[in-house]
Amino acid sequence: MNKAREFDQSVVAELRALLGDRVSTSAAVREHHGKDESYFPYALPDVVVFPHSTEEVRDLINICGRHRVPMIPFGVGTSLEGHILAVSGGVSIDLSQMNRVLAVHETDLDAVVQAGVTRKQLNEHIKHTGLFFPVDPGADATIGGMAATRASGTSSVRYGTMRENVVSLKVVLADGRIIQTQRRPKKSAAGYDLTRLFVGSEGTLGIITEVTVRLYPVQEAISAAVCAFESVDGCTNAVIQTIQSGVPVARCDIVCATTIEAINKYKKTSYRVAPTVFFEFHGTKASVIEQAETVQAIAKEHGGMDFQWATRPEERNQLWDARHNAYFACLQLRPGARAVSTDVCVPISRLAECVRETMADVKSYIAPVPLLGHIGEGNFHLMFLIDPAKPEETELAKQFNRRLVERALRMEGTCTGEHGVGFGKMESLRSELGEETISVMRDLKRLFDPDNLMNPGKVVPLS
Amino acid sequence: MNKAREFDQSVVAELRALLGDRVSTSAAVREHHGKDESYFPYALPDVVVFPHSTEEVRDLINICGRHRVPMIPFGVGTSLEGHILAVSGGVSIDLSQMNRVLAVHETDLDAVVQAGVTRKQLNEHIKHTGLFFPVDPGADATIGGMAATRASGTSSVRYGTMRENVVSLKVVLADGRIIQTQRRPKKSAAGYDLTRLFVGSEGTLGIITEVTVRLYPVQEAISAAVCAFESVDGCTNAVIQTIQSGVPVARCDIVCATTIEAINKYKKTSYRVAPTVFFEFHGTKASVIEQAETVQAIAKEHGGMDFQWATRPEERNQLWDARHNAYFACLQLRPGARAVSTDVCVPISRLAECVRETMADVKSYIAPVPLLGHIGEGNFHLMFLIDPAKPEETELAKQFNRRLVERALRMEGTCTGEHGVGFGKMESLRSELGEETISVMRDLKRLFDPDNLMNPGKVVPLS
Repeated sequence: MNKAREFDQSVVAELRALLGDRVSTSAAVREHHGKDESYFPYALPDVVVFPHSTEEVRDLINICGRHRVPMIPFGVGTSLEGHILAVSGGVSIDLSQMNRVLAVHETDLDAVVQAGVTRKQLNEHIKHTGLFFPVDPGADATIGGMAATRASGTSSVRYGTMRENVVSLKVVLADGRIIQTQRRPKKSAAGYDLTRLFVGSEGTLGIITEVTVRLYPVQEAISAAVCAFESVDGCTNAVIQTIQSGVPVARCDIVCATTIEAINKYKKTSYRVAPTVFFEFHGTKASVIEQAETVQAIAKEHGGMDFQWATRPEERNQLWDARHNAYFACLQLRPGARAVSTDVCVPISRLAECVRETMADVKSYIAPVPLLGHIGEGNFHLMFLIDPAKPEETELAKQFNRRLVERALRMEGTCTGEHGVGFGKMESLRSELGEETISVMRDLKRLFDPDNLMNPGKVVPLS
Repeated sequence: MNKAREFDQSVVAELRALLGDRVSTSAAVREHHGKDESYFPYALPDVVVFPHSTEEVRDLINICGRHRVPMIPFGVGTSLEGHILAVSGGVSIDLSQMNRVLAVHETDLDAVVQAGVTRKQLNEHIKHTGLFFPVDPGADATIGGMAATRASGTSSVRYGTMRENVVSLKVVLADGRIIQTQRRPKKSAAGYDLTRLFVGSEGTLGIITEVTVRLYPVQEAISAAVCAFESVDGCTNAVIQTIQSGVPVARCDIVCATTIEAINKYKKTSYRVAPTVFFEFHGTKASVIEQAETVQAIAKEHGGMDFQWATRPEERNQLWDARHNAYFACLQLRPGARAVSTDVCVPISRLAECVRETMADVKSYIAPVPLLGHIGEGNFHLMFLIDPAKPEETELAKQFNRRLVERALRMEGTCTGEHGVGFGKMESLRSELGEETISVMRDLKRLFDPDNLMNPGKVVPLS
């Protein structure tokens, strides 16, 4: 998709003078940085750089700024809306080598990490402390990338999203200023909330180089279970009632029958083929038993069948591994396919209705359409499997997605619960928030990035 | 303190044309709006207006903007850093008549209120639903004011501050644009987090007219207890260990022996005169018992004496009423005095050290210095009692406070855990965050309020 473009070789020379061999213009490296997990076609950067420090990021931002070259931060490339595509070329700033855990404050329940540390790496690093970092979008994304996209996932129903779990950020701005957004205490009323301004800004306002995150004590007991239901409605109603009852459920994810079938095939499991909720409970031993009993009773009222338990860590990992592999399992429903993922989120009171209308709509799609999602928060995903060689299929999937977004917006929902806006949801964002609100976002973009060089063409339409 | 100033009477005439008799220039009304709970001297607005709708707020902002007149939003005036003082005169926009609860979404666990609804009013309004709004700064502040100052209080250790509990805001900007920052789902990755940008902006970026807040199910069992300790260190260590153990304590506040004595006298209670922690536990019956047993065992290890329980609602209210009245009780330690309140917050690992050094320092103050605070989050307050007629006492108290802030900053803390910056903490904010970060806040202020009319002279030093 990249049109031929002449790239100023003096930029490469300056970057090489700064970073030595941590600058690459090879086709393979550029390809790797010109594609994420989304269905969008390749959009390659001209150069890829691998800084090791905040100061190097500042210096290379200054170089790019002087030459008016776009800059696109890159973590591990697991985003789903084309966030990291170099749609106007430029320099991909790969932060994955900034992967040091800088500090773990066990008593304060926080850790300071460089942006390239992945969530699994952090959890491995702090394993011996009895603490963990909860945000779990499935993919082993970098913490910087997760902050930039305001990621969430399976455990946010209890522990919150990156919005709640980032304490502070170090950010380099387009003009080279380096700021620490906030200090380390759990709460603060000290000035504007710059932390939250950058969480979810997708690299369009500045580049996050360090993240201070909240940690939580691993609870005494953790128990996971799957429960099959007669209907998707049963799943959603059971989850609504669970949350209304104040049960502090740690995870509750839905997968539809199609997805379960795909998981069984891919992971050689034997879950009952029916709409299913994956639950996890955290607490003391007694509390976990109590939570589980309450939820089982609720599930039964809504057509839930027996709970299949996993209490030992291996079993639990296996169970959530199945859930986390649903994406890859579903891709196998149509070998060679890619997926157009949807991401609407609605007030939970409208969830059953939204899912029902959507399932009826997608019946006419050319392939099975798996549904999965974090129903405790009203967020669900569909996977429209497409043949990437057939543009008309992408177009068809996008039409279904557009209808889904319209439906969710009609129900007071959002076009994106957790994937972010990126390249793919810019128009939807406008429908969602309206022209006035978008105009404020545009003002912010222009304030922080007057030359439109920070991940240009993402989040906010500039005109 | 207000110097004689000529106020453009045509502004008053235009405001009267818009709002009729909901415009006041009477001395009494202006005085009421020229003073908050802080020790700062009066700074009266020239006019006070009482809008009833977002559109009226927009129209009066347009009038003030055209005439370059400062605008200061006002809730009920319980702020503690001079937030609502009309330091350059202008129009006080009293939102207390915008006090309608617009919607309660029981299934979605949220409510939409006009900015002037107070937290107690909301809780009374939703009592029958089995839900509650948790943020509790003590005073019966308006929800709009609480959002504007990023308030927190006794229950934030479990339920979070206004940062976590505001879902969305309707805001009128200085140029008359009306924006809804976000939609109603629990989470969203749709663009920049404008909600959080306005939470804590203290009326300096725009005027909040509607707030969507999160609600929570009232738990099956609630139990409160006070526990006296041999030392303040014992209190802090017990609370640290409680939080490390993952006990989901709903409240845990410390009051020092001086404060307890004042409370006993003021409320005719008979708490043991010693450093004391007020606890509250929420959960199922079994879980509350379990939490309480765990915390009692932890307390005992740290020199805690017997728990004094309050499980019936009246008893519980009485107990927290005692805690909430600590401020007024302590004022009686020196009749006629006002208080200079401090508000530092440090990482919890530094709390004992910070409190210890501070207690040693304040021994030389001219009056007893009560200490109280939300130690689960590292946030504590001192009350320096001053004779408002003696400026040298205010100056002395401010010197102690400056040393306290310096101490907290040295320990990676913040100058304000929950009261906000207002007029009183602007210099501290600069020390805390550094020139670069302040410069970004200043950029934001100028973007949203180029003529410096929105609560001018607060939060960000413009030069």
